Amino acid sequence: MKKDIISKQCEENNTKIIMVVLDGLGDIPSPANDNKTPLETAKTPNIDKLAPQSAMGRLTPVIDGITPGSGPAHLALFGYDPLEDLIGRGVLEAFGLGVDVGKNDVAIRANFCTVGSDGKIEDRRAGRIPTELGQNLCRLLSGKIKSANGVNVLITPGMSHRFAVVLKGKGLGNKVTDTDPQHEGMLPLKATGQDAKSKKTANVANILMEKFKVALKDSYPANGVLFRGFSSPPNLISFPERFNIKAAAIATYPMYKGLAQIVGMDIIKSGSTLRDEIEALKTCYSDFGFFYFHIKETDAGGEDGDLERKVSGIEKFDKALPEIMELKPDVLAITGDHSTPVIMKRHSWHPVPVMVLAKDCFRDGLARFTEKNCIVGSIGSVPMLNLMPLLLAHAGRLGKYGA
Amino acid sequence: MKKDIISKQCEENNTKIIMVVLDGLGDIPSPANDNKTPLETAKTPNIDKLAPQSAMGRLTPVIDGITPGSGPAHLALFGYDPLEDLIGRGVLEAFGLGVDVGKNDVAIRANFCTVGSDGKIEDRRAGRIPTELGQNLCRLLSGKIKSANGVNVLITPGMSHRFAVVLKGKGLGNKVTDTDPQHEGMLPLKATGQDAKSKKTANVANILMEKFKVALKDSYPANGVLFRGFSSPPNLISFPERFNIKAAAIATYPMYKGLAQIVGMDIIKSGSTLRDEIEALKTCYSDFGFFYFHIKETDAGGEDGDLERKVSGIEKFDKALPEIMELKPDVLAITGDHSTPVIMKRHSWHPVPVMVLAKDCFRDGLARFTEKNCIVGSIGSVPMLNLMPLLLAHAGRLGKYGA
Repeated sequence: MKKDIISKQCEENNTKIIMVVLDGLGDIPSPANDNKTPLETAKTPNIDKLAPQSAMGRLTPVIDGITPGSGPAHLALFGYDPLEDLIGRGVLEAFGLGVDVGKNDVAIRANFCTVGSDGKIEDRRAGRIPTELGQNLCRLLSGKIKSANGVNVLITPGMSHRFAVVLKGKGLGNKVTDTDPQHEGMLPLKATGQDAKSKKTANVANILMEKFKVALKDSYPANGVLFRGFSSPPNLISFPERFNIKAAAIATYPMYKGLAQIVGMDIIKSGSTLRDEIEALKTCYSDFGFFYFHIKETDAGGEDGDLERKVSGIEKFDKALPEIMELKPDVLAITGDHSTPVIMKRHSWHPVPVMVLAKDCFRDGLARFTEKNCIVGSIGSVPMLNLMPLLLAHAGRLGKYGA
Repeated sequence: MKKDIISKQCEENNTKIIMVVLDGLGDIPSPANDNKTPLETAKTPNIDKLAPQSAMGRLTPVIDGITPGSGPAHLALFGYDPLEDLIGRGVLEAFGLGVDVGKNDVAIRANFCTVGSDGKIEDRRAGRIPTELGQNLCRLLSGKIKSANGVNVLITPGMSHRFAVVLKGKGLGNKVTDTDPQHEGMLPLKATGQDAKSKKTANVANILMEKFKVALKDSYPANGVLFRGFSSPPNLISFPERFNIKAAAIATYPMYKGLAQIVGMDIIKSGSTLRDEIEALKTCYSDFGFFYFHIKETDAGGEDGDLERKVSGIEKFDKALPEIMELKPDVLAITGDHSTPVIMKRHSWHPVPVMVLAKDCFRDGLARFTEKNCIVGSIGSVPMLNLMPLLLAHAGRLGKYGA
């Protein structure tokens, strides 16, 4: 109902909305850093210039206390209820590698692993083999194995020991248990299916486990595979259709391109640096109304517990901000997908700061964009999935409800 | 569920609750006004006296980003979920003109329009003819047309080119499309019904379109009519029944009387000035427990982008406030139904400030009643439909839930 209301009220116009997502932006005060957060520590003269004219607030990705993965966090950012739809790990991996996964396909996240002579797993990641070796091994597997039990098998290499397997066939279910036992020293598990269709998939997976092992017998340390995250894409109304807006995604990491692709955004080609992303934004700017602009470095800093790296990620974005502002977006939002506090070195449940700049935003008059200011900002503390309706409203794209 | 809980916990007592609704009160800081809002700009010594002892907060009429019409906003103020029930434009117009619309009747918002010799619409509002002319033409139509296809037709003039048509008969549906194409240079549309009952209504509407045209053939520029907003009143549990409280509505504009009538409040007769409204409040004060007290001027100022008029509307209310306080209400709420920011000149989605004064309110200690103070007020930012339970609680009218 809520969704329908928003979709129904959406009106097209020529406005441009840029949503900058600094991955893992949110943080908590660090006693080792004078009780300041990375956002407070960073020198951000350009953000500071915009701050007083902006509306600030905080976004709760799922519900209080729930730490989101990147999938649910991005669904929420894109205006979808992360409790209604979940993106499986297999789908995320496959989309991220540029593999198209159809509604009826099943995608699997696979690892090369090291298996001892007793069949037990010695290293779940095969010593984190180089990406190039992983690519070669995937080529080897693809050459030998094209199908199993009448189901087509598509093998695509990822980073290091990671790869994706996509099963394309009729009557495949995705309620299948992992073959990865998550611990070394154990035998790989048999995949099992929850229903008839998923049993068919599990059967194919078990055949593949054997075939792959045979094909890899001389490839120590990458002489085995493990499967997890059997999944099909969620059946969502696409973002451009739902919000009546052409949407572009600019990101350097495959997973984020995949997340944007799942909701039907156009993925804009770009190189791997922030500079490249800015160029990509400029190039496609006239063709779209909405821009998802993803920056990874902040999250990497958080995950590594590296305050300086997270601060530097924020500062690099700040330096690039004037180029974005030159495009004169009607609505600019700066936020994150979740918090990754440096002192925690992992995703957390803490609300994510957001600032929104637009002609008709409430001008909070707050001096800087920080977690603490966001607590008292005019947007308040709201579910992350409410951000999209707010941005559409600020762009004049949400019509009046009722007479 | 929520509704039931509140209704079940309602207990009668002798307390008095006054809800002052300054229409369109909410606003946003204006760069042209030193980044102040009208509430901040207005001189409000009487509100200021009460402010520190009050609880403040913000009300979201529908959901984040959704701009409400007056209908949904008032349903929310009156404690109803505006996403569950919608008041159609026809009903709103008819009730506002003092026409009783029964549950099975269908009300239509009608316009006089100008039609060219080719039958195409030249002006959807017939040059905004004077109200008196509209009244004469309605009298002409009423004299000639009393029924169509066995359905009684009630014609009531409104302001300028506007009038209401209420159809009273058996088996009428309200899922009928507008005959107003919303654009000049087009032919009026045929009404169509979604189901059998609505097809009957559509048929009557199409007959009326023709009859009206014939009757108006010499009335250029008001020589045609357009219909929209076919609707019947929503089937709501009445406010007095639901909250176990006798409720009075004091308003000068027809539409707001209509909105109060829809939820079953008693409409108190009053003149057209704030002075008249205060007198009406005093006169009926001993007979009711709840008073909806509506002031229109603030919204008109917002809609016209007229800062001074909005400020003056607030200041006039402030001058009248001591007379209201002399009545010693147990609970006083001052709020709006939605925001109408002066710089936007239209309704907006921004949350609406509210202050609540009662013996048992949290005393926020904030110096003035302003949007910014309301952000940090003790009521927080809550759905507008939560206001009624809060007011009933402050009046000692909501019993304990559970042992």
